Amino acid sequence: MRTVIAQASLHAALQHVMPAAAVSPAIPALSGIRLQADAGGLTLTGSNEVTRLQYHIPSDDPALSVLEEGGAVIPARRFGDLIRYLGEEAVALEAGKEMLQIRTAGTVCRLALAARDASEFREAFDLTDVVRIRISNRDLKRMVKQVSFAAASSEARMVLTGVLCRVDGSRLSLTATDGIRLAFCSSELEDSAGEMGPSAVIPAKSLSTYAQILGDAGFSRISIGTNAVELESGRFRMLSSLLGGAYPSVDGLKPARELTRVTLHTASLLQAVEGASVLSGDQQHLMLLTVSPKQAILSSTSSGTGEMQVTVPWDGPVSGIPAAPLTVSFNGKYMKEMLRSIASDRVQLVLAGPDRPIVLEPVDDRPGAEAYYLLTPIRTPAVLASPTSPA
Amino acid sequence: MRTVIAQASLHAALQHVMPAAAVSPAIPALSGIRLQADAGGLTLTGSNEVTRLQYHIPSDDPALSVLEEGGAVIPARRFGDLIRYLGEEAVALEAGKEMLQIRTAGTVCRLALAARDASEFREAFDLTDVVRIRISNRDLKRMVKQVSFAAASSEARMVLTGVLCRVDGSRLSLTATDGIRLAFCSSELEDSAGEMGPSAVIPAKSLSTYAQILGDAGFSRISIGTNAVELESGRFRMLSSLLGGAYPSVDGLKPARELTRVTLHTASLLQAVEGASVLSGDQQHLMLLTVSPKQAILSSTSSGTGEMQVTVPWDGPVSGIPAAPLTVSFNGKYMKEMLRSIASDRVQLVLAGPDRPIVLEPVDDRPGAEAYYLLTPIRTPAVLASPTSPA
Repeated sequence: MRTVIAQASLHAALQHVMPAAAVSPAIPALSGIRLQADAGGLTLTGSNEVTRLQYHIPSDDPALSVLEEGGAVIPARRFGDLIRYLGEEAVALEAGKEMLQIRTAGTVCRLALAARDASEFREAFDLTDVVRIRISNRDLKRMVKQVSFAAASSEARMVLTGVLCRVDGSRLSLTATDGIRLAFCSSELEDSAGEMGPSAVIPAKSLSTYAQILGDAGFSRISIGTNAVELESGRFRMLSSLLGGAYPSVDGLKPARELTRVTLHTASLLQAVEGASVLSGDQQHLMLLTVSPKQAILSSTSSGTGEMQVTVPWDGPVSGIPAAPLTVSFNGKYMKEMLRSIASDRVQLVLAGPDRPIVLEPVDDRPGAEAYYLLTPIRTPAVLASPTSPA
Repeated sequence: MRTVIAQASLHAALQHVMPAAAVSPAIPALSGIRLQADAGGLTLTGSNEVTRLQYHIPSDDPALSVLEEGGAVIPARRFGDLIRYLGEEAVALEAGKEMLQIRTAGTVCRLALAARDASEFREAFDLTDVVRIRISNRDLKRMVKQVSFAAASSEARMVLTGVLCRVDGSRLSLTATDGIRLAFCSSELEDSAGEMGPSAVIPAKSLSTYAQILGDAGFSRISIGTNAVELESGRFRMLSSLLGGAYPSVDGLKPARELTRVTLHTASLLQAVEGASVLSGDQQHLMLLTVSPKQAILSSTSSGTGEMQVTVPWDGPVSGIPAAPLTVSFNGKYMKEMLRSIASDRVQLVLAGPDRPIVLEPVDDRPGAEAYYLLTPIRTPAVLASPTSPA
């Protein structure tokens, strides 16, 4: 392989594929970035056991000249660091049997390959029976941010580390839950995918990596197969295995009967939860929310350290305010993460009783957009359940 | 104690004193921030065994009302977090025997005191026999950045964790060394301090904390005593113990006889060292620098992984270029830290032979400013000492 490429283009390409390079993989080649040069251009690939990131620079890009076709697998971190510190000039890459030579006007570097054989990279993701959809990158990024934080971080139930992705006609829905909190959002697609598509569980980490690297402009094409998924936008492409196992049924979890619905300013509620978090130092980050006629009262207590109450006034319509104050208790850290993932200015809080899931619904004016969050309340001793109103 | 103060003022004041609050101190009170309100205003103090940071808000500041004099010691981190999350409004503070009440329009919080007795804070730093100097904050920040990184991080020789501070007539000199590298800078003061003042060793950490918090505008007054030092600028004040023990003699370390002097572009040399660092993965971060007629050649080798050579052209006068290439070897990490601390565009590299300290002198046009860096070379096996010139 021999190519010449502008440092800025090579650096940008590496930024797209580095996140997938495995840190200490079972297959040594996966610690590297694969370069493949052919008549079509230069393709960079970073891969781990679950996800593959690819970036393709086409041969008609003036930043690239392919002088000799071929491939090589280069140690990811060292290669990335080296390219980062080169000046903005042309970089000549030439792969030998054991080394890659990297040359600019002022630099010559020889780097041992991570693997002699580029074929050690797993070639095939099983993309069969695919359903294809197309979504603007802006919408996709927003949806992924809305749900991915709620997936389980523990691998105790592997399938919960994923995001459930459903296509139904022209509607795409994403759901994530770790069993205590749940995040759901759905969006109308511009192109209809036709009939009811499959349910696929995409690893949350893969999905957020893709969405974080992705630019705001343009569209992503998503191909959902039986065992794998492909997301592609321009030169950038991700392939990921899907998570197996049955995703729990999530459709009936939102309480059908609602008692109280209030509207709050998202940033004010978040600020209040952050303040109250300072004094909810126990493991459960216990926090109480009391609905009173004029406002919500957030309160937290840390035994021996102090106590806090913050009032948050309504910021829109309210209904079903109970005669006696209604208090729910919950994990403040979870509430914080939910509120941080909401882009809307205002949010509705829906309560169905102290033991029923707390519902948050972002007030979103975009047509066809829907989102809600569920948070299981914490049962608390009665003594904590009635904060005194601040004077 | 009862005061009302604008959230923004209280938050800013806390930012100045928090860095000194001890994390798990022998004296519990030191984990707190002390508030003292009196006719003069409100003073906040954070303190550890070595350093005290103080911020004073005078009573004529419209952001402050002292309603009742008194003091309290509040848990530092919780207090800081709470104030950060309050809205920009008036904050009423009222200290009881065991609790501080913090109240805004929407928030009421009671926080257990860190200590019942504010007097547990050490009262006296021994500021006797002081020499006083005055220096612009801009110059002080620059000087501290130039030297403090070179102090020892290990406490094996306690005195080397400090910065040697000398006043001689109207000149202030700072020196720091860990035994392998040394950083020196000196500056002409606007006000002459008179005769030769004392040598004091100020803990490097205290000095950089003060300099980092300090704004660019204004002046600092420095009072150097026998056992302690005080730095003060406007409302902000630091007291620190000095380090005892004899500071090693540093005056004769710079080689008197110089063979070769070359001028380089600081940022280009730093970029080259950062690039070569990628392949100097051993513990010593071994790197070679070869002086050839037209340029410097930096090279590094990582056994089994690769090798690298970067050329850096001269960027100014050179003298004493040897007929045969002259190579010195050194710790690349140390070289990087030195170069990062240099604000000047260009730097002179002075060599007195492969076994003599490498000297770096920033090219600084400010009148009266002087600075240099010394780096002890690493002795290397002959086989590494002659890089081939890149084509």
